[in-house]
Amino acid sequence: MARGNPVRRRGRPSPTTASSQLASALFDRLATVTGDGVGITRESYGDGEALALDIIEAEAQLNGLACERDAGNNLVVTLPGRDAGLPSIACGSHLDSVPQGGNYDGAAGVIAGLLALCRMHAEGFVPARSIKLLALRGEESAWFGRAYIGSSALFGKLSADDLALPNLVSGRPLIDCMREAGVAVNRVARGEALLDPGKVAAWLELHIEQGPVLVARNLPLAIVTGIRGNFRHRTIECVGEAGHSGAIPRWLRHDAVFATADLITRLDRHWRTLLERGRDLVMTTGIIGTDPAEHALARIPGRLHFSFEARSQSAETLEGFYDLFLSECAGISEERGVRFDFDRRLDSAPARMDEGWIARLRAALRDMDLPDEPIPSGAGHDAAVFANAGIPSAMIFVRNEHGSHNPSEAMAMDDFMLGAELLYHTLREAGAS
Amino acid sequence: MARGNPVRRRGRPSPTTASSQLASALFDRLATVTGDGVGITRESYGDGEALALDIIEAEAQLNGLACERDAGNNLVVTLPGRDAGLPSIACGSHLDSVPQGGNYDGAAGVIAGLLALCRMHAEGFVPARSIKLLALRGEESAWFGRAYIGSSALFGKLSADDLALPNLVSGRPLIDCMREAGVAVNRVARGEALLDPGKVAAWLELHIEQGPVLVARNLPLAIVTGIRGNFRHRTIECVGEAGHSGAIPRWLRHDAVFATADLITRLDRHWRTLLERGRDLVMTTGIIGTDPAEHALARIPGRLHFSFEARSQSAETLEGFYDLFLSECAGISEERGVRFDFDRRLDSAPARMDEGWIARLRAALRDMDLPDEPIPSGAGHDAAVFANAGIPSAMIFVRNEHGSHNPSEAMAMDDFMLGAELLYHTLREAGAS
Repeated sequence: MARGNPVRRRGRPSPTTASSQLASALFDRLATVTGDGVGITRESYGDGEALALDIIEAEAQLNGLACERDAGNNLVVTLPGRDAGLPSIACGSHLDSVPQGGNYDGAAGVIAGLLALCRMHAEGFVPARSIKLLALRGEESAWFGRAYIGSSALFGKLSADDLALPNLVSGRPLIDCMREAGVAVNRVARGEALLDPGKVAAWLELHIEQGPVLVARNLPLAIVTGIRGNFRHRTIECVGEAGHSGAIPRWLRHDAVFATADLITRLDRHWRTLLERGRDLVMTTGIIGTDPAEHALARIPGRLHFSFEARSQSAETLEGFYDLFLSECAGISEERGVRFDFDRRLDSAPARMDEGWIARLRAALRDMDLPDEPIPSGAGHDAAVFANAGIPSAMIFVRNEHGSHNPSEAMAMDDFMLGAELLYHTLREAGAS
Repeated sequence: MARGNPVRRRGRPSPTTASSQLASALFDRLATVTGDGVGITRESYGDGEALALDIIEAEAQLNGLACERDAGNNLVVTLPGRDAGLPSIACGSHLDSVPQGGNYDGAAGVIAGLLALCRMHAEGFVPARSIKLLALRGEESAWFGRAYIGSSALFGKLSADDLALPNLVSGRPLIDCMREAGVAVNRVARGEALLDPGKVAAWLELHIEQGPVLVARNLPLAIVTGIRGNFRHRTIECVGEAGHSGAIPRWLRHDAVFATADLITRLDRHWRTLLERGRDLVMTTGIIGTDPAEHALARIPGRLHFSFEARSQSAETLEGFYDLFLSECAGISEERGVRFDFDRRLDSAPARMDEGWIARLRAALRDMDLPDEPIPSGAGHDAAVFANAGIPSAMIFVRNEHGSHNPSEAMAMDDFMLGAELLYHTLREAGAS
């Protein structure tokens, strides 16, 4: 019987087995230390995030890697290269989470980077240029209503308004929370870049997919073609005319619900056409409602408010679609005797991933006998901030079920290890020259 | 100058001028006595309604007409006929109003009936059969959540559930409010008819139009072809799947808002087709909304609740349309991977107006050199209760702007007097035999 007879290890475990054990141990430790009873909570510039950084830092040090904190108090782990003057290659992701979130969103990219650096270091590999792992803070918008705070601070992109944003829980301004977390807030407030983009040759970010595409297509990994930008209206109001639901015939109605349904259906039709033509586009009306103060079962609704958002990797597609959107609003206004009142249009620019890095990663996928079908990222990522700072950037998505920002995120360790392997090989190959 | 020199009347005023002065005086008295500072308030089985009945009763008595209260404590004014055994001809409407309502909804029909009886009495006209004016109580659903309480009570159609309905303001049950208003509630509770339908040869009700059709078509009056019935769902829930608005492509979405917009647009298309085919139909989604507890700008809505109502004069059209409605829900569920959860279907049967009376009224309109284009009634009326009790019924609509149930109801006295004239002539002609 096995009792009392532990399985004997035959020699040393393979690098992959060792990496896999280390990864599992790190994910477990993060989950234990930052668990909240429901999911995990690693507040941007708060305690859970700080604990997560400490866990990664301790593990890196244990493996003989040099660690430091930059002026944004992000963790930087370095595998030094032969020529310290050459721009380094950086990988990583963020360590914060939404409240009661999942354990993989962000942390997967940091742990994959750590595995790669540990393995190269253990192998005695000395790259031509330094390879760095960045464990970033403040990526999630859940805490201060703004996303990518940590990476934006790196490139001097936080405004005074951003720094005044109140914390969701305590109400305290971002700048105070950052100061207490050890960030050089005077430099951040001056808009000073804490990291010179010229000193970073590339940014490689592994992340769980936050959508269902890889599961639906049965792909363990995918390379990201670009990060969608968007235009948004938080509140559009369709104004028609209220009236008795029985007494007003169709030709005399100005029904805000029927008009808005017509609008959404027309936009849906354009959407299908644009997809058929190969355009990248998603659109959502996440919020819609008649006014509880005046709506009734037997009253033609005179007002309806709704939100509208469209996302695309292509700024041109977004602009073209916005024109279509306005033109359908105008047509429906004319036909149905209603009016659409718009609030301020909000924009977020798409970010292009680097063609060269996409090609390298896809080639590496093929070398691993994996499908190399690329997909766009609908969710935003720190990689968009790096790309828009002029740093060639690329992303690896790992298959994940049940979306993100919830405790049911489900990434299989086998898929993760394939992603970590891909990152390791790509970094090692790139670091060789 | 005119000061101190009142215009001298040449002889006696014409019957029409006298009627018009009486009508204006009565509308003014009602508005003064039941005004609430915003509009007028005549609560069903409450003070304002009782005051309105008293005003009409006093005026009828002043004009030498016999008045009584029936077991429902409605006012009954009688012009006795030669043969008391013959079924009488009845006209009238209701005297209650919604809170802060308009002065004409209901009262116009009572005053028009009173003018007709006063004028016939003044002319010394003795009809073959009695002609009665009924000033009904409790028509508006605003106070107890149920419409046509007064006329339903007349025909023994109030259930125990109805009688337990709480008053909007006081919360006291309907049965208590009726008892205090002088209604024989024991008979009502037993479901006893307080009025034998066999003793009523016809019910003629003049009412303001509560929709905009007569204004839009420039018709002062119209005869009503029928009163629309309806089917209703107070709450239908479309259940899809929530998700990240950027990360889920169209083909993997189960968007409750897009699915419901699709449904409404398809139903709208069927509506247009049915109208082209001459069917009578209106439909309304008065209430719609995503859940504020979980909706967000950047979240694909997984749930959307909405109400749905369709009305038609034809039970067959309603049934056919309900089938179409279910079939579109099923089709969309299949195509979009959503589900529609329905609450209990509520029904109200259409009421047919009497063909013979419609023909008489239309002929009388032509005699008055007025257009005789008939229209359906979208709103419900006591006439539907009389018709469904087996009494041949008909309605005269008077042009009215700004809808009803609000203080801006606008009925021109000239239009009203044309309607009163039509009612007078029709009653007199019918009473002759």
